[in-house]
Amino acid sequence: MNLEKYLKRKRLIIDRALDHFLPSDEELPRNLHRAMRYSVFAGGKRLRPILAIASYELVGGRGRGILPVACALELIHTYSLIHDDLPCMDDDDLRRGKPTCHRVFGYGMAVLAGDALHALAFKLLAKGGSRKVIEEVANSIGTRGMVGGQAADLEAEGKKVGLKQVNFIHTHKTAALLRACIRAGAIFGNASAKELKALTSYGEKFGLAFQIMDDVLDLEGTEAELGKKIGADKYREKATYPRVIGAGNSKRKAKALILSAKRELRNLERKDILEKLADFIVDRSN
Amino acid sequence: MNLEKYLKRKRLIIDRALDHFLPSDEELPRNLHRAMRYSVFAGGKRLRPILAIASYELVGGRGRGILPVACALELIHTYSLIHDDLPCMDDDDLRRGKPTCHRVFGYGMAVLAGDALHALAFKLLAKGGSRKVIEEVANSIGTRGMVGGQAADLEAEGKKVGLKQVNFIHTHKTAALLRACIRAGAIFGNASAKELKALTSYGEKFGLAFQIMDDVLDLEGTEAELGKKIGADKYREKATYPRVIGAGNSKRKAKALILSAKRELRNLERKDILEKLADFIVDRSN
Repeated sequence: MNLEKYLKRKRLIIDRALDHFLPSDEELPRNLHRAMRYSVFAGGKRLRPILAIASYELVGGRGRGILPVACALELIHTYSLIHDDLPCMDDDDLRRGKPTCHRVFGYGMAVLAGDALHALAFKLLAKGGSRKVIEEVANSIGTRGMVGGQAADLEAEGKKVGLKQVNFIHTHKTAALLRACIRAGAIFGNASAKELKALTSYGEKFGLAFQIMDDVLDLEGTEAELGKKIGADKYREKATYPRVIGAGNSKRKAKALILSAKRELRNLERKDILEKLADFIVDRSN
Repeated sequence: MNLEKYLKRKRLIIDRALDHFLPSDEELPRNLHRAMRYSVFAGGKRLRPILAIASYELVGGRGRGILPVACALELIHTYSLIHDDLPCMDDDDLRRGKPTCHRVFGYGMAVLAGDALHALAFKLLAKGGSRKVIEEVANSIGTRGMVGGQAADLEAEGKKVGLKQVNFIHTHKTAALLRACIRAGAIFGNASAKELKALTSYGEKFGLAFQIMDDVLDLEGTEAELGKKIGADKYREKATYPRVIGAGNSKRKAKALILSAKRELRNLERKDILEKLADFIVDRSN
């Protein structure tokens, strides 16, 4: 199947579902709901829900039952971006080419919008998922996952860091949730042990490659392409792959990870989309 | 049973369980785990987990299976206090007589500590609860519950507000989670429809009375008693009951709610503890 068509079709379905699951911005308190919707509909690629759906479909899952789980993953991603952009964290004014949530709705309201998306995600997971899926997601975004990575990232700022520390930050900050998207889709689709094992390895490698490319793009991309201020990481001396091993080596590392990720799928059927998605993230320019 | 003894015994059990569920502060990233533990063990009354346990026991639940659920509720309460105390929200330097989380660990780390406790709560709920319990809790802390109340509170600051708005803020900000504690314990203990209905009404009235008394104490208590800066609400012109209807009327309102809450339990057995807890919150001085 053509990846571009697949992505376009899935994005449409996901956006409709997100619109359905989010409270109307006419409901009180209006600014809170507006802030949530503003950030959720700020033009995300919907990579995380698409990974969950593609993994679900790979193991034979069909139909729209996966949508609450898939949308929950996008809400969690959005909450993390809102908090990450706050002045006390990365202090970003632009995200996807638009002013960040706190620039539009204020600092306190942005904290609350993130918190509300976090809670709504678990509401959706409870409604449409299973305890196993909820545990998988909760684990991936706690101190042994996303938030742990963000805290390590925050502490490393301005300090000299080695590859081991950069690896800790990236496997936690970004890769843990991406891996959980793949696993959640597979678990929800009743994957076999063999399928789940292969997809877990795929997800780990995919996740790390994704973050490495993100850092390379931050260094090399143009502001128009990325929709955010570029070179911000270098300016703040953040712990990134390009900073520690250079841009060329980082790209090679990401490409090797993607090759290896695809190899994990070799004994599975219906792997077409996940293979193409892996290639997509090393070839993207934003 | 003597309430003081009951509270003391339950607090001990809850504190041990919290210590068990929280990652060690030697685990990386250390400051994140330290910040979480600092706020969780800053001397809370453990009212929320105790309400869940008492409700669970009222409907016939026995044993420690409720502890993950009960502790999850305390973690959620702690996360909300950490975010509430942030400079962009209530900007409090003291909480329970100690410097607030962001004063000790920094602004960014406090945001992350709150986020991590939020995620850990759902991990515990997924491990030890049920989908119904998870949904109950997630609903009570989202935009139609706690965070919705905090957003309305934030928006009302410095503005002229009426009783209707104060009611919206309080029923959402505080009462929703307290009601959910009662309901979660009952649902986890397989309450009958009759029991759940009575306990839900009890929880609603208990929750609102609790917040009204909190505002009265904020106005009348001493700093030593409360362990936080008093009169802060008045200073910032926050939307509170005493501000809208006066301290005397507020106290009368809280006492009437507590009487009514106890009356909801009249046809239930084993109601002793929840009755005494209701009296306790209008008689407390901190």
